[in-house]
Amino acid sequence: MATIGFIGLGNMGGPMAINLLKAGHEVKAFDLSQAAVEHVVSEGGIAAASAVDAATGADCVISMLPAGVHVEGLYLTGEAPLLDVVSDSALIIDSSTIDAATAQRVSAAAAERGLSFIDAPVSGGVGGAIAGTLAFMVGATDEQFTKAKPILECMGKNIFHAGQSGAGQIAKACNNMMLSILMAGTSEALNMGMKNGLDPAVLSEIMKQSSGNNWALQVYNPVPGVMDGVPSSNNYQGGFQVDLMFKDLGLAMELSQQSNSPVPMGSAARSLFSLHKSKGNGGLDFSSILKLYQDS
Amino acid sequence: MATIGFIGLGNMGGPMAINLLKAGHEVKAFDLSQAAVEHVVSEGGIAAASAVDAATGADCVISMLPAGVHVEGLYLTGEAPLLDVVSDSALIIDSSTIDAATAQRVSAAAAERGLSFIDAPVSGGVGGAIAGTLAFMVGATDEQFTKAKPILECMGKNIFHAGQSGAGQIAKACNNMMLSILMAGTSEALNMGMKNGLDPAVLSEIMKQSSGNNWALQVYNPVPGVMDGVPSSNNYQGGFQVDLMFKDLGLAMELSQQSNSPVPMGSAARSLFSLHKSKGNGGLDFSSILKLYQDS
Amino acid sequence: MATIGFIGLGNMGGPMAINLLKAGHEVKAFDLSQAAVEHVVSEGGIAAASAVDAATGADCVISMLPAGVHVEGLYLTGEAPLLDVVSDSALIIDSSTIDAATAQRVSAAAAERGLSFIDAPVSGGVGGAIAGTLAFMVGATDEQFTKAKPILECMGKNIFHAGQSGAGQIAKACNNMMLSILMAGTSEALNMGMKNGLDPAVLSEIMKQSSGNNWALQVYNPVPGVMDGVPSSNNYQGGFQVDLMFKDLGLAMELSQQSNSPVPMGSAARSLFSLHKSKGNGGLDFSSILKLYQDS
Amino acid sequence: MATIGFIGLGNMGGPMAINLLKAGHEVKAFDLSQAAVEHVVSEGGIAAASAVDAATGADCVISMLPAGVHVEGLYLTGEAPLLDVVSDSALIIDSSTIDAATAQRVSAAAAERGLSFIDAPVSGGVGGAIAGTLAFMVGATDEQFTKAKPILECMGKNIFHAGQSGAGQIAKACNNMMLSILMAGTSEALNMGMKNGLDPAVLSEIMKQSSGNNWALQVYNPVPGVMDGVPSSNNYQGGFQVDLMFKDLGLAMELSQQSNSPVPMGSAARSLFSLHKSKGNGGLDFSSILKLYQDS
Repeated sequence: MATIGFIGLGNMGGPMAINLLKAGHEVKAFDLSQAAVEHVVSEGGIAAASAVDAATGADCVISMLPAGVHVEGLYLTGEAPLLDVVSDSALIIDSSTIDAATAQRVSAAAAERGLSFIDAPVSGGVGGAIAGTLAFMVGATDEQFTKAKPILECMGKNIFHAGQSGAGQIAKACNNMMLSILMAGTSEALNMGMKNGLDPAVLSEIMKQSSGNNWALQVYNPVPGVMDGVPSSNNYQGGFQVDLMFKDLGLAMELSQQSNSPVPMGSAARSLFSLHKSKGNGGLDFSSILKLYQDS
Repeated sequence: MATIGFIGLGNMGGPMAINLLKAGHEVKAFDLSQAAVEHVVSEGGIAAASAVDAATGADCVISMLPAGVHVEGLYLTGEAPLLDVVSDSALIIDSSTIDAATAQRVSAAAAERGLSFIDAPVSGGVGGAIAGTLAFMVGATDEQFTKAKPILECMGKNIFHAGQSGAGQIAKACNNMMLSILMAGTSEALNMGMKNGLDPAVLSEIMKQSSGNNWALQVYNPVPGVMDGVPSSNNYQGGFQVDLMFKDLGLAMELSQQSNSPVPMGSAARSLFSLHKSKGNGGLDFSSILKLYQDS
Repeated sequence: MATIGFIGLGNMGGPMAINLLKAGHEVKAFDLSQAAVEHVVSEGGIAAASAVDAATGADCVISMLPAGVHVEGLYLTGEAPLLDVVSDSALIIDSSTIDAATAQRVSAAAAERGLSFIDAPVSGGVGGAIAGTLAFMVGATDEQFTKAKPILECMGKNIFHAGQSGAGQIAKACNNMMLSILMAGTSEALNMGMKNGLDPAVLSEIMKQSSGNNWALQVYNPVPGVMDGVPSSNNYQGGFQVDLMFKDLGLAMELSQQSNSPVPMGSAARSLFSLHKSKGNGGLDFSSILKLYQDS
Repeated sequence: MATIGFIGLGNMGGPMAINLLKAGHEVKAFDLSQAAVEHVVSEGGIAAASAVDAATGADCVISMLPAGVHVEGLYLTGEAPLLDVVSDSALIIDSSTIDAATAQRVSAAAAERGLSFIDAPVSGGVGGAIAGTLAFMVGATDEQFTKAKPILECMGKNIFHAGQSGAGQIAKACNNMMLSILMAGTSEALNMGMKNGLDPAVLSEIMKQSSGNNWALQVYNPVPGVMDGVPSSNNYQGGFQVDLMFKDLGLAMELSQQSNSPVPMGSAARSLFSLHKSKGNGGLDFSSILKLYQDS
């Protein structure tokens, strides 16, 4: 079993660290919030005094932070860069959802020092983090991926090797942009059907069995009452917040801009989530985008 | 077995009529093209001299025409309206893809005369028409639907009761708008991935197993070479033409306008297919929308 | 001075008819609303008992109706088509804002009978109708235009010869689509400036003197308080209603569909006005689109 | 007369430096390109060996660089930050078009050291830079603006005080986003008119005198032949390149993302310029967006 330094113990990182503990790993946990650290300690983790403390001597370092600026600061440009302290044999896994350019920059800086830094953002939400059923999209060499996989499998179910450094972030940006398109599109198709007298459950079933079939219709119907156990049937509480979708769409726009990849549909979806957020709905599940379409 | 008058024997109507023959029905076939009539006759059909001839005395009249203006002309406003000649007990099934308003207008006119006119547009394309695996989206009363179902089952696999008169057309407009959104969205996500170095097959697989999952990724991948037997792997030949998708998106816009149902994503998709069509790609399969995104 | 049959005496048609009276013409006025007729009579008009009565014997027939279906019904397909009663030498001017295809169809039917039907939709709103400062966009032959011009000048200031039959409707659809794009674009640019701390009056002035200059900044600023005497400074009352802009954008979409003219910006604007209308703002001036963008 | 350190002597910066010389200022000029320096020297400038050399002892430092990363590097985070060498009384004017956040960050760092850094991006293009008719949009305190104005007037005609630090960049992002919307909208309106038989010169004139009036119709018509002396009448050579518009739209998206300002129209315009650029048109004038719409 490995010694893992885990930095960033929020809604996602906390349960992920605990799943590593459950799998038998030793986890040195650090977060700016003392309460978050203590929660992991109560499950068997070791409190680290700092990120440097967590990383020093670890076989593996995992980070789960809000944005690229935090990741770059932690490893490279901050006051105590972790790239200065991790051991040569350690594997660094960043599971934050950040821009691919930052992931590639930190990875390149690590490689220059003979270190391994890979990007492995997740999907599956807080529920998946707790249940250990996250999907990981990994940007790494084959060797790095092989090394990372057993560790990631303690926290997730589907471990995808998306490609080289940055590919995990790129795959996640593409997928989540697609998701925003699906959800907005499904909402507007169902809303148009309802405004013209169709039963949303019937129309959902028809489209699910036809060429309109997609993930939203299958497991995340945006119309309250059509499906049990989804945010739309719980006042759009829980799930994946509009604020987070808006953040991810910002990353997709950045990627589009840097690579000049035209994204008219993703841009249209981002505009809709932006309008929806501006009306105070940032904290709702993203399937609440249906409300933007509805008559008031 | 019933006597069926079938009007409109094109790429779709021809094979549909032939499947009715195979199921044992008597089919009186009419089309403006003599060759189209002869083809059905060669499979056992009876040549009708006119639409009126096909409809007179039939237990069931089925039409498969290009647009609402043809359907309204055939049944109601033309020189020899079929509503004047069909028997009281006959069931009229219009399988054309037309605007819901026309379908409802003709149905109401039929009802005033004690006749039954239902809308039952299809999806599944020429392949589905030949194989008898079409999906039918039906706008009808329960009684009408019950009566129509065994006949539709000779030509299709999934027979959906979408709702009252017009609901079949509405469901189809919603579904095909959703399809255009899916296909454009999937194309742009895959293109952005490819421009950033990802393998489209790998990215397709990741999204298919994640929240970006949709019909295009499952059975109709737009990137040449990712999937066998789809139009993208055959120079975008066959399949569902850009011209037809553009037509269907026009119907969706009309429905949106009449009911004030906002359709920003569908409108964005229509704009893309319009740009693509204006560059001479109207005859290609609609998954060729990928080419609009790609560098040249 | 001419005898003019005027059909359609609403908010626009009423003042237009009165301006013809003021210019010395004889006006036989008809409207389904008796009150509307009486108002014109009180200004010196002659009450017509029907549209046929108004048109019979007139040197010129002018119509101002809500939609293409009314215009086609009035002249061609209704129970008492005016094309059957107008004199050979009469000039028919339709000032309704309708689809170009209907205008062309009625004009062609008129031409077949040796009659002259031209399209001459207006811009300038109720204020312009009252003040006699409307702009007319005319689709007509040179000869027809020459004949119409002095009559139109009694009601308007700028009389444009847009082209042949239908061209007036086409020009209006293009202009009003452009207007919707300007207004939405100006609103979002000013809103982004304001959200980032800029004074909307200062930013408006900068853009007006720069390459962002447009009609909205010049005479119709959407931000309350920046400009006096505009709807935005009067709770978005008066002016040009969202409902009417939405109708005009529907006509632009139809024209786009028929001619396969890609209109991605116009489509995006239509989506925004549609979202705005669905929240109960159809009766506000169209510059209220700013509210769609603003935080609530 | 002042001693001015000028850093960045490209297509814009070169002529701007020369106009300062013409006004009688002493200009210490630096650029990575020796040829660019020599050109300014040939007009009376003094060659600086480095940016530090140019800035040291200057009364005013002006920079004209490609992106925020260069500006931040030059003044703050690079190997020889200019904020370490400029005199306390010097005024630093950055005329680069960069993101507002970087401008504000550098300005705040300058203020901490008792230095003055203002943002003053320009519009007017290479032509305006040569003619000395640029517009400057300035983010500065009143005192800083008063001090900067006489210097900026040597290079430009309209000097706008947009607001506090960053406001110049914000105003420029808003204006150029508006410009992209105008140009795309005007192109699609004119294209739809042309596809329906209208003369683009006639339609342009009608819209210019109506509510569709905007800067593109006034001075920069995108249809070849309608207007003399504009890029569209010169194969879209010269003017403001698609690549630069795409860059500016990227800055607008960033600003929108950071402030959650919905920009659906700007996003739609960015998508169109992105599609156009991906087909190899990055080097054409941005009014060539018309070609994206046209049939091929």
